[in-house]
Amino acid sequence: MPAKSKKNFSGVIAPLITPFGEDGAPDPDRFIKHAQWLMANGCTGLAPFGTTSEANSLGLEERMELLEELVDAGLDPAKLLPGTGMCALTDAITLTQHAVELECGGCLMLPPFYYKGPSEEGLYRYFSEVIEAVGDDRLKVYLYHIPPIAQVGFTLSLIGRLKKAYPDTVVGLKDSSGDWANTKSILEAFPDLEIFPGSEAFLLDGLRAGSAGTISASANVNPAALHSVYQNWQTADADALQGRIGGVRKVFQSLNMIPFIKAIVAHYRNDPGWAKLRPPFVELADADVAKAIKILETEHGFKMDFGKAV
Amino acid sequence: MPAKSKKNFSGVIAPLITPFGEDGAPDPDRFIKHAQWLMANGCTGLAPFGTTSEANSLGLEERMELLEELVDAGLDPAKLLPGTGMCALTDAITLTQHAVELECGGCLMLPPFYYKGPSEEGLYRYFSEVIEAVGDDRLKVYLYHIPPIAQVGFTLSLIGRLKKAYPDTVVGLKDSSGDWANTKSILEAFPDLEIFPGSEAFLLDGLRAGSAGTISASANVNPAALHSVYQNWQTADADALQGRIGGVRKVFQSLNMIPFIKAIVAHYRNDPGWAKLRPPFVELADADVAKAIKILETEHGFKMDFGKAV
Repeated sequence: MPAKSKKNFSGVIAPLITPFGEDGAPDPDRFIKHAQWLMANGCTGLAPFGTTSEANSLGLEERMELLEELVDAGLDPAKLLPGTGMCALTDAITLTQHAVELECGGCLMLPPFYYKGPSEEGLYRYFSEVIEAVGDDRLKVYLYHIPPIAQVGFTLSLIGRLKKAYPDTVVGLKDSSGDWANTKSILEAFPDLEIFPGSEAFLLDGLRAGSAGTISASANVNPAALHSVYQNWQTADADALQGRIGGVRKVFQSLNMIPFIKAIVAHYRNDPGWAKLRPPFVELADADVAKAIKILETEHGFKMDFGKAV
Repeated sequence: MPAKSKKNFSGVIAPLITPFGEDGAPDPDRFIKHAQWLMANGCTGLAPFGTTSEANSLGLEERMELLEELVDAGLDPAKLLPGTGMCALTDAITLTQHAVELECGGCLMLPPFYYKGPSEEGLYRYFSEVIEAVGDDRLKVYLYHIPPIAQVGFTLSLIGRLKKAYPDTVVGLKDSSGDWANTKSILEAFPDLEIFPGSEAFLLDGLRAGSAGTISASANVNPAALHSVYQNWQTADADALQGRIGGVRKVFQSLNMIPFIKAIVAHYRNDPGWAKLRPPFVELADADVAKAIKILETEHGFKMDFGKAV
């Protein structure tokens, strides 16, 4: 068994993709079904409203309604790690408070990302004000470091300061820097934080270095294979299993990944509506999707199995 | 008289700074007073909820309430150009609709800025969907190009496509690229757009090349001097007037500009509360502010005069 099972979150967490209906509004039915399928097929938790979820294209009300739909549908809120970090402090407080009231296991928080080059003090105050305003011991904050997109990120110094001030609240971090050296430096500096590399490319290396698992876009379509690495990371098969998910990931990355992941789900569910995106994202060309899926299947034995689909 | 007076907006437009009360909430009283003072002291219009306004640190409700306060206080909505571009399409529609209902003269729209490297098609769809959803001939969109902060911006191709599809709606652009060559290329490609350089450093060059004026942070504290350039750009004094505002601007830029502008207002209003910022911004050190204000006064004869303050 994995060594990290005592942590609040561990294993393979999917940043849940957000389906849209014909009218452009989020579609709770497809959303719930996908969440249930993931939890039945290798995910140990779900991170609705991550980057892959097109969360930053959703309004506050849309996010809160979708989260309520998940909980109402019976998803265990303790396994939910919704994104609640927003540019606007007041919005972040609203979403974080709401997630805590729903008993979510944690909140994955982007820093305020519009204004570039903020000071450490400014970022510290932002998180401090959210935590104080929510004022609830149940709040567990996972810092979301994704400098390639948010541009604004977390230094070791800022992480340390937040952790020291709020040791029972600031408990984890997702590192989507794509830079293993950065992940390693955080793991070394903060061995008791729950650290999730933002890509399964670092799943095995991460587990060996003390990480808690991964929160990765491709967990939306390849959860069982990712879970097999997590389950078997201390066995002789680990490197071979990691090699397999690495090969599949390269194909995912051969196209714009968020549209492609939705297109993959649309394909295997035989439901073209699943591929719909909200601007600024646009759908991929059908031919490109077909070609990449063929490579996934013929070269990597990939498929999504909705035979037992809920 | 300026040649551009037939345009919807022209002259010196201040991206209105947003004051906060002791409780951290926006302070409508200080906000209204500042707006009234600016309109009485050289501004020809106001752009609440621009970058300088810390708009991206404000929630949707906070923005709508503040805008209503301005209109209720008697500010002419035709002179208001509120920022309504948001990462989330639904939020952008909400704010844009609200501004149109209040009869605002225009909406200054950021592109969706979280997801980096969006396609032209994706950005086109975003603006198209906002314009179609609002569905009101009164809507006048000013595209807000600020790549140093938003990262996502507008190419000539995208501007042209939007302008062609919505010729009566997409009527202007603020160029905060800080790159005069870029501003010039937009002015040349689209002579009938109302173009506002995002810095008064380009005010005179812009007017000579056909721009409509400027929307600049420092219009919050130096509106009369900026207006003097706008009023006299065809006179023999123009270059000397431009030189003066350039010297003052350099001092503004010697410190973090948004905190410094608020600190300048706090100083001349003798109201320390004006200097308050919302995270991720933090206040400047008093000594740095005092030193920079002394330079403004002694070397540039700068002051803000609230003698006739409302």
